[in-house]
This record gives sequence, structure tokens and C-alpha cells, in this order.
Amino acid sequence: MGAMAWDTEGTKRRLLEAAVHEYSEHGPLGARVDRVAHRAGVNKERIYQYFGSKQKLFAAVLEQEMTKLAAAVPLTADLAEDLGEFAGQVYDYHRTYPHYLRLLLWEGLDTPPGPVAAAAERAAHYADDVTAVSRAQDAGVLRNDVRPGYLLYVARALAAWWLAVPSTVGLMLGGASGDDPGERRRVLAGLVRDATTPRG
Amino acid sequence: MGAMAWDTEGTKRRLLEAAVHEYSEHGPLGARVDRVAHRAGVNKERIYQYFGSKQKLFAAVLEQEMTKLAAAVPLTADLAEDLGEFAGQVYDYHRTYPHYLRLLLWEGLDTPPGPVAAAAERAAHYADDVTAVSRAQDAGVLRNDVRPGYLLYVARALAAWWLAVPSTVGLMLGGASGDDPGERRRVLAGLVRDATTPRG
Repeated sequence: MGAMAWDTEGTKRRLLEAAVHEYSEHGPLGARVDRVAHRAGVNKERIYQYFGSKQKLFAAVLEQEMTKLAAAVPLTADLAEDLGEFAGQVYDYHRTYPHYLRLLLWEGLDTPPGPVAAAAERAAHYADDVTAVSRAQDAGVLRNDVRPGYLLYVARALAAWWLAVPSTVGLMLGGASGDDPGERRRVLAGLVRDATTPRG
Repeated sequence: MGAMAWDTEGTKRRLLEAAVHEYSEHGPLGARVDRVAHRAGVNKERIYQYFGSKQKLFAAVLEQEMTKLAAAVPLTADLAEDLGEFAGQVYDYHRTYPHYLRLLLWEGLDTPPGPVAAAAERAAHYADDVTAVSRAQDAGVLRNDVRPGYLLYVARALAAWWLAVPSTVGLMLGGASGDDPGERRRVLAGLVRDATTPRG
């Protein structure tokens, strides 16, 4: 029983890791379950046995990747008081590890109509972030004339956009200096700070 | 000669219109030239004759759609002084007509390595925008401690992100009121204004 449980967890983990790459590369419509199984070295039937369907595998992948980002850049009380630095850390994460951002973009572009994948788990996660921001608003550190979700929106949107549409932004910022990730991160943090803190 | 020239222009226009839909739906990798030809009611050979290749057709589509947005929301001197309102108008445009944003997102996700599509034309267009913003910085209306391209970045990123990843943002903002486009537009304009004007 112990060995069996271990095997199941190991197999699930291998399948999820293979699925991250498959969905990041091909999106929810283009992804193929047999390629995931082959990459993981696992029989395809296991995917249906463990996850239920291709759609549910995508939901499991999204949830896992959201949790990874949250573990790498936890929105602590301190960080909630400096959303500029939070945005910088999210930018660093996406830049180092592009899969999660790609999954979100695929979800926006290429998902058939229907229920949102892993909606309850993702909503619960964002609710925690909203609570942290809301406390920083109550403390007077963040502006409180808009709902906390909008301040998270600013941080996440400005952290992600250059990585989402790199050609467009490269042309807009122009030239070599516009491609400097260090400059981008510094400017990002400053702009997010100014948009999310009370005006003097 | 006159009738012939008219025919050529009409055929090109029909092909581009069909290509917008094909690329918006399937992206640069998934798009099929024969579906474009069929939708336009034009022989497939004409596409190669007029545009040269599938890649060049995508570049022509991107350039056309960029020009359409610029015509619908021209960054005049007045509008450059209020990037919040500019962001609101860009948001309205993307919301009403999603094709251009989808093309940009596809380009980010699904383009094989190589030269950027329509790079010279797009760079020239953004250079005009940068000039308009730069003048508003010189006039003291916009903050001048960051390069003008970054202020355009704020306006465009915050206008687009909710439409790029609607499920994610819907879960983050939560509930019915978070889905209200009027509220989003109002908050968007205010946040962009605060991020792009000098702090008091």
C-alpha cells in the first residue's frame, strides 16, 4: 500500500510535469494526451484514470503552476505594502520560467466556451491576495479609492505585458536600451508604486 | 487598366479581410492559406502573387490592423496629454473589435523565431506615438523621469490585460461588479493618469 501510494503520486507528478510542457507549447486545443503520456513514460490510460479528461488535466496544470508562482513570490503582508516590488518579483519569475504566463495566455486565446478551469481553487487563491492588499489599504499604505483587486491588476498586468507581447513592446520601447530587463524591472517597480499608493 | 487596378485592390482587400479572421482564430502557425482563399472567394495562387508568402500575409494583416486602431484612436497632441483617456479609448476598441489584440497575443505565443513581422512599419508607427508623448512630457503634463515609451507601455498594457486573460482577471476581481466594463474603464483611466502624470 505504501509503495503503491508512492507510485501513484510519482506518476501523477511526472504526468503533470509533462503536461505543463505540452500545454505551454500547444495550448489547450492543440495539446495531445498521447504526447503527454509519452513524455512522462506513462500509459495514456493513466491520465484519464488520474485526471478524468484532457480538460481536467489542463485545470490541474493551471492550478499547479499558479501554486508554484505563489510559493516563489508569496504576497506577504510586507510585500502587499510594496506592490512595486511584488510586480518586480512576478516579472522576474515570468522571465525565468515562462510556462505559467503562456498557460494563462493560451487560456485567453484558445479555450472553448465553458466553465473556467480550476475556478474555485483560483478564486480562493486570489481572495487571499485581495485580503493582503485590503489590509495594506486599511493601513493607509496603499490607495483605498479603488477595490483591492484593481491594485493587483496593475501589478500583474504591468509585470506580464512585455513578456506576453515581446515584439510589440520591443518596437514600442525601441532600440537596445528598451530591451534591458534591469531597466524594465526598475521602471516597472516605480510605475506600479506610483499607481497604487495614495497621491500626496 | 483602370478596371484591372480596381480588381487587384478589391481582391487584395478581400484577401486581407479573410486573413484577419483566419489569423485571429488560428494564429500564425495554425492559419491555412487555402481557408483564407476560400473565405475570400479567390484563387489561392493570388495570395502568393500579391503577398509573397504566408509569413508576409501575416505581416500585412498585422500592419493593416495596427493602422485601423491608429485611425480609430489617433494619439493626437490633446490625447497624448491625457493617457488615461487614451487607455480608455484603446480598451473600448479592443473590447468592440478583438481581432487586433488576438493577433498580437498570437504573435507572442506562437511565432517561430525569425525577423519581427512588419518591423519597420510598426517601429515607424510607434515612433510617432513616442514623439507625441515626449511633447507632453516637455510641456510638463506627463512625468518626464522615464522614457516616453514606458508611459505608452502603461496605457497599452493596462488597457489590454483584462481582455487578454479574461478568466484570470475575472477571478481576481471577483463577482459581478468586477465584470462591469464601465467600472473597469473608469478605474483604468484613473490608474493610468496617476501612473503617467507628475506626482504633486
